[in-house]
Amino acid sequence: MNNLAEMAAALKNSTRVALFSHVSPDGDCIGSMLALGIALRTLGKEVYYYNPDPVPHNLAFLPETERISAKLPNPWPEVLLFVDCADLGRVKLKQEDLPASATVLNLDHHISNESFGKINVIDPQASASGEIAFALISELGVELDQAMATNLYTAIVTDTGSFQYSNTTAQTHRLIANLIEKGIDFGNVHHHVFDQKPLAQVKLLQRALASLEILDEGQLAVMTLTLADFKESGAEESLTEGLVNHGRTIAGVEVAALLREIAPAEIRVGLRSNLWLNVNEMASKFGGGGHKRAAGCTLHQPLAEAKKNLIEAIREGLGRGRVG
Amino acid sequence: MNNLAEMAAALKNSTRVALFSHVSPDGDCIGSMLALGIALRTLGKEVYYYNPDPVPHNLAFLPETERISAKLPNPWPEVLLFVDCADLGRVKLKQEDLPASATVLNLDHHISNESFGKINVIDPQASASGEIAFALISELGVELDQAMATNLYTAIVTDTGSFQYSNTTAQTHRLIANLIEKGIDFGNVHHHVFDQKPLAQVKLLQRALASLEILDEGQLAVMTLTLADFKESGAEESLTEGLVNHGRTIAGVEVAALLREIAPAEIRVGLRSNLWLNVNEMASKFGGGGHKRAAGCTLHQPLAEAKKNLIEAIREGLGRGRVG
Repeated sequence: MNNLAEMAAALKNSTRVALFSHVSPDGDCIGSMLALGIALRTLGKEVYYYNPDPVPHNLAFLPETERISAKLPNPWPEVLLFVDCADLGRVKLKQEDLPASATVLNLDHHISNESFGKINVIDPQASASGEIAFALISELGVELDQAMATNLYTAIVTDTGSFQYSNTTAQTHRLIANLIEKGIDFGNVHHHVFDQKPLAQVKLLQRALASLEILDEGQLAVMTLTLADFKESGAEESLTEGLVNHGRTIAGVEVAALLREIAPAEIRVGLRSNLWLNVNEMASKFGGGGHKRAAGCTLHQPLAEAKKNLIEAIREGLGRGRVG
Repeated sequence: MNNLAEMAAALKNSTRVALFSHVSPDGDCIGSMLALGIALRTLGKEVYYYNPDPVPHNLAFLPETERISAKLPNPWPEVLLFVDCADLGRVKLKQEDLPASATVLNLDHHISNESFGKINVIDPQASASGEIAFALISELGVELDQAMATNLYTAIVTDTGSFQYSNTTAQTHRLIANLIEKGIDFGNVHHHVFDQKPLAQVKLLQRALASLEILDEGQLAVMTLTLADFKESGAEESLTEGLVNHGRTIAGVEVAALLREIAPAEIRVGLRSNLWLNVNEMASKFGGGGHKRAAGCTLHQPLAEAKKNLIEAIREGLGRGRVG
C-alpha cells in the first residue's frame, strides 16, 4: 500500500479529524484544508479546522472558512492532518504539544518538508498541496462537489500565480479541467483572490512609482518607499508584497530593487531579476539571501546611503555581464 | 464531411496558402496564424503571412514572426486562410480586393463573424482562435512541434488573460496540457507577453493613480489623465489599455472610470464594473456603448465638466442599487 492509500485508510478508520494549516495562511493551505475537511464530512467524520492566524479577507468567500478556529482542539481527535506545512513550526507547534497517541498525517508539496508525520505524502512535483488534496479525495472515494472544487481551484490558482509559474504542469491543467467541469465559478475566485486590493496598497504603489528611477541603460529599476510614504498612505509593510514587480516588468529591465524605510537606519530591500542576474549573490553581500531571481536583505544605514551602496553592488553585477 | 474536415482537405489540396490576421494584432491572431503556417509548411506548402500592422514588440519572440509581411501577396495564392477575423474589414480588405478564383477559408471564434468564407469554421465556444487552430492542425494530421505549441499557447493565454476570463473552459485547460507536454517554455511566453511594459506606460500609471479619487462610500473609483500627463510621460493613448482595472480591483469598488483628455473638449472614457452595475447603459447616455461590465464613450466637454457629468450618471446608477 502506498502512502496515499495508507493516509486514506487512516482517515476512513477515524471518527474525528483535526486539520491544520500554516501561519500567514494563503489560498493553497486554506483551500486544500477545507476541501479535505468537506470530503471527510461527507464521509460522516467530525472535522476540526485549525489555523493560528486570521483568514485573509480575500479568502473569506471560500466555503467553510467560517469554521476555521485559532484555538487548538479540545479534546484532541485521534487523527491530525497537517496540510501544506513543511514542519510543525509552521503551525506554531512542537512535537510535545501533540498527544502521543495521535496519528499524525502530513500532506505537503514543499521539498523542505521534514516528514514529521506517521504517514507522509510529500510531492514536490505538485504545483500546490491542492493537487495532492485532490488525489487524496479521490483515494477516499469521495466525489467532488462544487464546494470542494472551488477550494481546490483556489489552492492551485494561488500557488501557480494563475498557471504562470514554472511549477505548473500538464497534470495541473488536466486537474483544473476536472474542477471546472464541476461547474465552479472560477471568475468569482479570481475576483476575490486577485482583485481585492486595499486602497492603501494602491496609494503605496503610486508613491513607489513616483520614486522610480531607471538606471544603467534601462537595465536597472529602483524604487524607494520612505517612512512618510507608509504613514501617509496608511499602509503596513506587508502591502509592499509584489510591488517590486512593477519595476521588473518594464521592458528592457533585468533587475529591479525596492527599498523600504522601516526605521531611519533600517532599510529592507527586495530584489528581482528577469533572465540572468543572480540577485541572491547581491543580497548575500549585505547579509541577506534568497534565490537567483528573488532575494532580499536589510541595510542598517540611512536610506540615501543604503540606496547608493545597493546600486553600486548591482551595477558591479550588471557590469560583469551575462555569462552562459 | 464537417467544415473542419473540409477546410483541412482544401489546405491539403493546395500548394500555396496565404494566411491573414487582423489589424492591431494580438497574441491570438498572430499565434494562431503562425502555428497554422508552420503546420502547413511541414506539409510542404508554400506559406505567406499577412498583417496590415507591425507585430507588437511583446510578440516578436514568437517563432516565424519575422516572416509576417504588411504587403499583400503577389501573385495571390489559390487558398486564402483568414484567422481570428470577424469580417474582411479586420484586414482592411473588401471582397472585391480578393481574386474571384481564390478559395477563402475563415477560421474564427467571434460570434459576430460574418461567415464570409467559402468554408467557415466558427466556434464561439472556443476561448481563442488558437483552440480552433489546434483542432485544424490535428485534422491536418500534423504532429505539434514546439514552435507550433508555443504559438498556440500564446494565442490562448492572451485571449483568456492567463485562464482567468469566463471564456476559459475545461477543454481549454486540457488543450494547454497537451501543449505543455511538448516541452514549451511557457514561463518565457508569460515574460514576453505580460512583462514587457513600456516605461511610458508605467509613468502614465503613476499619474493616473495620483489622480485617483474614491467616491460614493468606496464603490466608485475615478482616475483622469490630462493632455499634460500624456505629453510629460511620453505615452500614446494606446498605453492606457487596461489601466482602468487598477481602479476596478480596489477592494469595495464596484465601478471604475478612466477619463482621458485627447483634446481640450474631447474626453474619452473607459468604464468597468465588477459584479452588477450595467456600465453599457451609462456609456449609452453619452452616445457610447459596449458590454455590461466594460464600456466606453466620448464626451465633448472640458475635462472638469465631463468628469462632473459622468460621476452624476454613475452615481444615479449606483443609487438605483443592485437588482436581482
